[in-house]
Amino acid sequence: MLNSKRVVKYNGEAAYSVTVAGLRRLLPIIEIGEVTISNGRFKAYIASDSELVLGDVEFINAVSRELANLVRIHKPEVIVTPEAKAIALAYGVSRELGIGRFVVARKSVKAYMGKYVHVKVNSITTKGDQFLVLDSYAMGYVSNRNVCIVDDVVSTGGTINALEELMRISNAHVVCKAAIWIEGPWINDEEVLHLGELPIFIA
Amino acid sequence: MLNSKRVVKYNGEAAYSVTVAGLRRLLPIIEIGEVTISNGRFKAYIASDSELVLGDVEFINAVSRELANLVRIHKPEVIVTPEAKAIALAYGVSRELGIGRFVVARKSVKAYMGKYVHVKVNSITTKGDQFLVLDSYAMGYVSNRNVCIVDDVVSTGGTINALEELMRISNAHVVCKAAIWIEGPWINDEEVLHLGELPIFIA
Repeated sequence: MLNSKRVVKYNGEAAYSVTVAGLRRLLPIIEIGEVTISNGRFKAYIASDSELVLGDVEFINAVSRELANLVRIHKPEVIVTPEAKAIALAYGVSRELGIGRFVVARKSVKAYMGKYVHVKVNSITTKGDQFLVLDSYAMGYVSNRNVCIVDDVVSTGGTINALEELMRISNAHVVCKAAIWIEGPWINDEEVLHLGELPIFIA
Repeated sequence: MLNSKRVVKYNGEAAYSVTVAGLRRLLPIIEIGEVTISNGRFKAYIASDSELVLGDVEFINAVSRELANLVRIHKPEVIVTPEAKAIALAYGVSRELGIGRFVVARKSVKAYMGKYVHVKVNSITTKGDQFLVLDSYAMGYVSNRNVCIVDDVVSTGGTINALEELMRISNAHVVCKAAIWIEGPWINDEEVLHLGELPIFIA
C-alpha cells in the first residue's frame, strides 16, 4: 500500500512543507477520519490548505498567475469553481487571463435564485450530503461556452465530478480542469492540470 | 414611511440600475419576505448583487481599488470578511493595499479547526440561525492588529456586528468598516465607509 502514488505513512508530523509557484509554505496536517484505498480502510490525514487559499495574498497572487499560464492554451471563456474555498483563486485566475466572468456553484439554494439545478457531491472531507447548486442565470451564461473548472485541491474528484455534471446539464464545454494540488492516489496526473502534488497520510 | 432614507415604494420593477466605481450595473430585484421599519412590518424587496461580487471581474477589480482608497487612511493591517460572497472582494482590497493576509470568518465549523469561537448572526436575508466562526489560528493572527471589516452590502448590520464581536473576543482593533453599499434605513452613513447606497423596496 505504501508504494501507491501519493500515499505515505503518517508518523505524527504536525505540518508538511510544500513549495508551489516558487513559494514555500507549511501546511498543518489534520485527521480526516477513514478513507478507502485499494479496498483497504485506513485512518487518514491530509495537509490542509485553508489558511492559504482563504487568506494568503502573496500565495493567491502567485498560484493564480501560474494556473492561468497552465490553462491559457485551452482558451477558456469562463472559470467555474465551487463555493467557497477557491473563490479568490477563481477571481485571480480569471483576472490573469483577462476573462470577464467567473461562476461560483453555491453550496445551498439562495433566496435570489429563481430556477436552479443541484448535484450531489461525494467528498472525503465533508460529512453528510453536500450539494452544489447552479441557478438558471449561471446555467445560461456557461451554455455553449468553453469552461475551465478550477479548485484548490482535487483528491477523490467528488467535487470536480459534480461541477462537470452541472456543466453537462448546462450544455457547457469543459475544456480543462485545474487545481493547485492533486492529492492522494485517486486522480490520474493527466486528468487535472496542477501545480503540485499532496500525499494522503495513512496510519 | 416613504420619507425614510433609503426606503422606496416597490412598483414591480425587475431590476435597479446602479453606478459604482464608474461602472453601471443592473441589479435584479428580489423579494426577501417581511422586514420591520420604524415598528411597521412591510413586504420587502432588495436589489441583489450576488452575480457581481461572485463573478464580475471588472466590477471586483474596480470596487476593490476604490474601497482600498477609502480605507487606506485608517492603515489596516488585516482585512476581515464573512464567508462567502465578499471573499474575492476581500482578496482584491488586500491586494490593492499591499496587505499580506485577509481573514475569512467561516459559516460553519470545519474539520481543520482545533479551537474556535462562534457568534450568532441576525440577518434579514437568511432564514434560521446563522453563525460566523473564527478558529484559534485566525484569532491569534488578528490579536492586537488593526483590522478593517469588509463586506459587500451592510443593511441591518447583523453580519458586521457579529464580525465586530469576533474581533472583540480576539483582541483585535477594528479601525474601520467598509462595504460597497449600505442598504435600507438601518445603518448611519458615518458608521460604514461605502461607495454607494441601495434602497429597500417595500410594498
